[in-house]
Amino acid sequence: MKGFFQLISSKDFLELFDSFTTLDTEEVDLVNGLGRILAQEITAPEELPPFSRSTMDGFAVRARDTFGCSESEPAMLEIIGEISMGTSGQAISLNPGQTCRIWTGGELAARADAVVMIEYSHLLDKQTVELFKPVAPGENVIRAGEDTTSGQQVLPRGRKLRPQDMGVLAGLGITSVTVHRRPVVAILSTGDELVPPEEQPGPGQIRDINSTTLAALVEESGCIASTIGIIGDDFDTMFATCEKTLNGADMILLSGGSSVGKRDFTLKVLEKLKNSELLAHGVAIRPGKPTILARIGNKALFGLPGHVASAMVVFYLLVRPLLLKLGGMDAPLNLLPLTVTTGEQIPSAIGREEYVRVQLLWKNDNNLPVALPIYGKSGLLSPLVKADGLLVINRDCEGLDKGETGKVLLFPVQH
Amino acid sequence: MKGFFQLISSKDFLELFDSFTTLDTEEVDLVNGLGRILAQEITAPEELPPFSRSTMDGFAVRARDTFGCSESEPAMLEIIGEISMGTSGQAISLNPGQTCRIWTGGELAARADAVVMIEYSHLLDKQTVELFKPVAPGENVIRAGEDTTSGQQVLPRGRKLRPQDMGVLAGLGITSVTVHRRPVVAILSTGDELVPPEEQPGPGQIRDINSTTLAALVEESGCIASTIGIIGDDFDTMFATCEKTLNGADMILLSGGSSVGKRDFTLKVLEKLKNSELLAHGVAIRPGKPTILARIGNKALFGLPGHVASAMVVFYLLVRPLLLKLGGMDAPLNLLPLTVTTGEQIPSAIGREEYVRVQLLWKNDNNLPVALPIYGKSGLLSPLVKADGLLVINRDCEGLDKGETGKVLLFPVQH
Repeated sequence: MKGFFQLISSKDFLELFDSFTTLDTEEVDLVNGLGRILAQEITAPEELPPFSRSTMDGFAVRARDTFGCSESEPAMLEIIGEISMGTSGQAISLNPGQTCRIWTGGELAARADAVVMIEYSHLLDKQTVELFKPVAPGENVIRAGEDTTSGQQVLPRGRKLRPQDMGVLAGLGITSVTVHRRPVVAILSTGDELVPPEEQPGPGQIRDINSTTLAALVEESGCIASTIGIIGDDFDTMFATCEKTLNGADMILLSGGSSVGKRDFTLKVLEKLKNSELLAHGVAIRPGKPTILARIGNKALFGLPGHVASAMVVFYLLVRPLLLKLGGMDAPLNLLPLTVTTGEQIPSAIGREEYVRVQLLWKNDNNLPVALPIYGKSGLLSPLVKADGLLVINRDCEGLDKGETGKVLLFPVQH
Repeated sequence: MKGFFQLISSKDFLELFDSFTTLDTEEVDLVNGLGRILAQEITAPEELPPFSRSTMDGFAVRARDTFGCSESEPAMLEIIGEISMGTSGQAISLNPGQTCRIWTGGELAARADAVVMIEYSHLLDKQTVELFKPVAPGENVIRAGEDTTSGQQVLPRGRKLRPQDMGVLAGLGITSVTVHRRPVVAILSTGDELVPPEEQPGPGQIRDINSTTLAALVEESGCIASTIGIIGDDFDTMFATCEKTLNGADMILLSGGSSVGKRDFTLKVLEKLKNSELLAHGVAIRPGKPTILARIGNKALFGLPGHVASAMVVFYLLVRPLLLKLGGMDAPLNLLPLTVTTGEQIPSAIGREEYVRVQLLWKNDNNLPVALPIYGKSGLLSPLVKADGLLVINRDCEGLDKGETGKVLLFPVQH
C-alpha cells in the first residue's frame, strides 16, 4: 500500500538542521541594523562613558568635604567655576574646600569624586555655596567605563539587534556592523486548480492562498520572500522551475501537494534534482504530518502540506527555526512559549504531538492567560485568523483538562 | 524652589491620548500589507471556498450509499469518471450507486455529499470500486462558504495584518487594502555635549546615543523615524527646528534635556510654539518622571528624559501606545504582559510605579519564567542590553518577595 510515511518526531526533525551552516555575511550601516543578526562578537573599542559624568545638576565636590554636613550644619564651599556642557571638566581642579557647578552629563572636575544635587544647595554669594546633604564618593556620578570597559564584550555573535543594542553601538562609535545575509526563500504553489489572487476563479478553480501567506511568514521571520507563483501539476515544469529557482535561493518552499498523489509527485521532483538528499518524509505532528525535507548542499527544500493551516503550523515549528539558524541567530529559534491555563477540556490523540489553535484571554491580574481552542478543519483559514498561538499537547498525552497549565507558542507581532 | 513636578499617574497620562485621532489612510498592495493596520472592516465579497471541496484523495459519494459498509461487506459502486483538478466537479452528477474519483481540493460532484479516502477503497475493475468505510454526509469535505460566507466580517478595523489575515484576503481576491498611514516621528537630541556617533568626541563630549535608540524604537513600532540630529542648548535654534520639523511629522521626540535646567528649556520651547497646549509635565513612574507631553492640534511633542534607559522605558510605556493609536491600531497598545515569578527579592519605593529591568530565565516545563532584576543607573545602557523586559511594581507596593508572581512587559522582537 502506497503513501504511508516513515514519521520522525519534531525533535529529530529539528536535529537535522545541525548539518546546515549559517549564511555568509555583509556589512550594513548601523541605522539599518534593527532585527539583523550579528555575525561577529562586538567588543568595546573604548570606554563608555569616556569620562566620569554627573547624573545630576548640582555641584561637583570632593565627597570628603561634605561628610557630616546637614540642614543645620551645612558645608560651606568655594565655587571656583562652572563646567559648561561639552567642555573638559578636567580643566578645573578642586582643592579641599572647593567646588564647581556641573550639569547632568557634564564631565567631573579633576579630583572631584561626587556631585551634590542642586536641590541640596544654597548660594551665599557668587563664590560661596552651602551644601546640606553629604554624598559618598561616586554618588550621582557614572564613572568612566562604568557602562562598558575597553575590550569588554558588548554583544555576542548571533544576537538579533534590538534598539538598545544599537544605542550602545552608537555610543561606542560603531556605525556599521557585520551581519548575516538574510535568507532568500523561494515560494512555489503547485496545483492545476490554482489561480493568482487577482484572478476570478473558474469552475473548480480556487485562488492561491499559500503563496501570500508563506511570503508574509518569511518576511515576518526577517527573511526575503521570492514568490515564484503557481505551477500546474506537471512534473517537467515543476522540476525545471525548482532547478532554476535553486540558483538564487537559500530555501525553496513547495506547497500544494498535500494529497498522497501530489505528495509523491513533489517527492519525485525533490529526489530527481541533482545532488539532492532526502532528509525527512513525514513528521509525527498534527497538523503537519506530510512534510518533506530535502537538501542540496546547504539549501533546504521543503514540501509543505497543501492545507494552509497545516502549512502555517509547519512553517512556525519546522521552517522558521532553520531560517533563523541559516540567518545566524542564536537560540531561541522557537516561538515564544507562553504559560497559560486551559479554558476548557482539550482532547488529543496519543502518538502525535498536537498543536491546537487557541485564542488567549488576557487577565489584568497576575493570573495566567486563558487558552480557548478554536476548532476547524485544517483547510480553513478563519480559525487561524482568530488564533493567537498554538497550544502544545505532547505525544503521550491524551489531552488537557479544563484549568490545567500548558504552553502556547505565541504567534509573532501581537503587541 | 524650582523644578518640582506636578506628577500624574501613568493611567492618567494614557487617558490624555483619548483626544488624539487616528491618522488618514492610504491604499497598499496586499503583498506589502504585513504589519499594517486596517482602516476599514473587511467583509467577504464572496464565499470561501467558492465550492464544496474534497479534503482527501478518494471517491466522491452520496454518503447514504456507504452506510453499513465494512471490510467484510464493502459497498460496491460504479465509477462514472474522475474530477480533474481545476475542472468543474458539478459537470459530473451522481445517481444512486455511482461514484467518481476526486483529489484533495477538487470540487465535489453534483449530488455527492462526502468523500471516502482512497485508503478505504479497492478497485475491482476500471468501472467498479469497493468501499470499506462508511462516511457521514459532509465527511472529508469543506463546504462552500464554510471558511467565510458572503458578506461576513473577515477582519475588523484596527487589525494589524498577520500572515494568516493576508492569506484569507488573497483567498477572497482582495489584493489591496486601505490602511492607516504610518506615523512619522521626528527625533531631536539636544545638548552641547553631543556629537554624532561617527565623530570622535573631544574633551567633555559624548556621542549621541538617544537618536539611534529612539529611531530604532520607532521603527520597531511600525512607524517611520526621521532623525533630525543634534541641537545645541540654544533656545532659538531649538525653537526654529521644532517649528520647521512640525510640518512633516506627526510626533516630535525631544530628548537630552533631563536636568532641571534643560527640562525647563524644553518646556519653554514647547510652550512657545504656536497653538501648543501642555498636557503633562511629570509622571509618577520610575524611571521616567521628567516626561513632558504637549500637543499642537493632533501632533504630539514629547520631552523625554535624557538618560537613555529612562527614555526607553518612557517610550514603551507612554510613547508607543500613542503611536499605535495614531496608526489606527485597536487594543492592545501595551507591550506583551508576561506572567513570571521573581528569582529574588525586589524592593521598591511607595508612591511611584516602578519598572524594573529584568532578565528572564525560561523553563522547559510548565513553570513560569523566572525574572531576575538587572540593577544599574538609568544613564547606563548595558543593563538594558541584558534585559528582556520590565517588571511592573505598583504604586502602593513596597516590592516583591522572591518567588512571588508578577507581570513583565516583554520587549518586542524576542522570538
